Amino acid sequence: MSVLLEFSMTPLDKGESVSKYISRSLNIIEKSGIPYKLNPMGTVLEGEWDEVMKVVTTCYEGMKQDCNRISCSIKIDYRKNRDKGLVSKIDSIEEKLGKKLKT
Amino acid sequence: MSVLLEFSMTPLDKGESVSKYISRSLNIIEKSGIPYKLNPMGTVLEGEWDEVMKVVTTCYEGMKQDCNRISCSIKIDYRKNRDKGLVSKIDSIEEKLGKKLKT
Amino acid sequence: MSVLLEFSMTPLDKGESVSKYISRSLNIIEKSGIPYKLNPMGTVLEGEWDEVMKVVTTCYEGMKQDCNRISCSIKIDYRKNRDKGLVSKIDSIEEKLGKKLKT
Amino acid sequence: MSVLLEFSMTPLDKGESVSKYISRSLNIIEKSGIPYKLNPMGTVLEGEWDEVMKVVTTCYEGMKQDCNRISCSIKIDYRKNRDKGLVSKIDSIEEKLGKKLKT
Repeated sequence: MSVLLEFSMTPLDKGESVSKYISRSLNIIEKSGIPYKLNPMGTVLEGEWDEVMKVVTTCYEGMKQDCNRISCSIKIDYRKNRDKGLVSKIDSIEEKLGKKLKT
Repeated sequence: MSVLLEFSMTPLDKGESVSKYISRSLNIIEKSGIPYKLNPMGTVLEGEWDEVMKVVTTCYEGMKQDCNRISCSIKIDYRKNRDKGLVSKIDSIEEKLGKKLKT
Repeated sequence: MSVLLEFSMTPLDKGESVSKYISRSLNIIEKSGIPYKLNPMGTVLEGEWDEVMKVVTTCYEGMKQDCNRISCSIKIDYRKNRDKGLVSKIDSIEEKLGKKLKT
Repeated sequence: MSVLLEFSMTPLDKGESVSKYISRSLNIIEKSGIPYKLNPMGTVLEGEWDEVMKVVTTCYEGMKQDCNRISCSIKIDYRKNRDKGLVSKIDSIEEKLGKKLKT
């Protein structure tokens, strides 16, 4: 589980309100069973490279069915032998600061 | 408050463990008083363009003092007249799906 | 000139063809006099932090005039005392590989 | 060839000079035969989703062999039926502006 991947995927040809399409992706992510956390700017997945990439690919295939132009940003943080990065990264910062942060 | 800005800022010359430097930025963000949410891959700020950019700039100035190489990713979502995007974007997706998501 | 900043800025509410809006930004960049290089996915600026950020801000103000939703990605690479990063970074890779690459 | 993918992949545990590792990726990209363009902040690939993702994955596997922490940014622009996006996107902006830009 050494990969954290955050991504956001948006159609460019559907006007300014795109939550319908984002919801479809979140449905795919939920069904995948992969550990994830949604934030206001994207979704963070945790797993091995091939696992997290497969989820992103499935979201892309879902969106491509009725969208002619799609923009997608992906950011990956690989750390050898890391475990439970979805929680441990934030824990580590809070510990250093000695206080809880807004999450 | 029409801008949501997510950013992550990391030194490249300090080895693989960088939470000391991230903590310094979080301290700056907390002190700024700006609405924010930390996630495992970055921090999302909400405000007007100049307000959120000022916070990022202050974090950069803090990190630059003892880091020779810094990498920074910023993603901005501007939506005219949006209010409380830190919560409303997630609410809107959960409403469409009719269930709570992991955040 | 220690900052390289790549950015792309796109309206989400104008349909799939957005080169009209990108052109407006490129016009602003050209007029700023800042060193830059356009590529198929964004524009790389070189300068000090405040200089490059000012250009991005001016592009945002230009786009905001008639766009209700804007998405912007920025990636920054700061390296202390670097000079002419627009050319030196590629030179350094080509030198290591001992051959010219496609740019 | 409807996908343009720009990526940059950097080790975080190798100090501030990382061109040795970037060169390794460029070697992989060259050998893949995929159309690409290197810029000072990343490399843009053109192909179908699976083709471009495969190249990124191979670069990751190469870097993982001796790097304990890796950061990777990917930006994708899918446009249905687009052809030769590596050149056509820039051409389209230059045409709108009626002048050549710096590339």
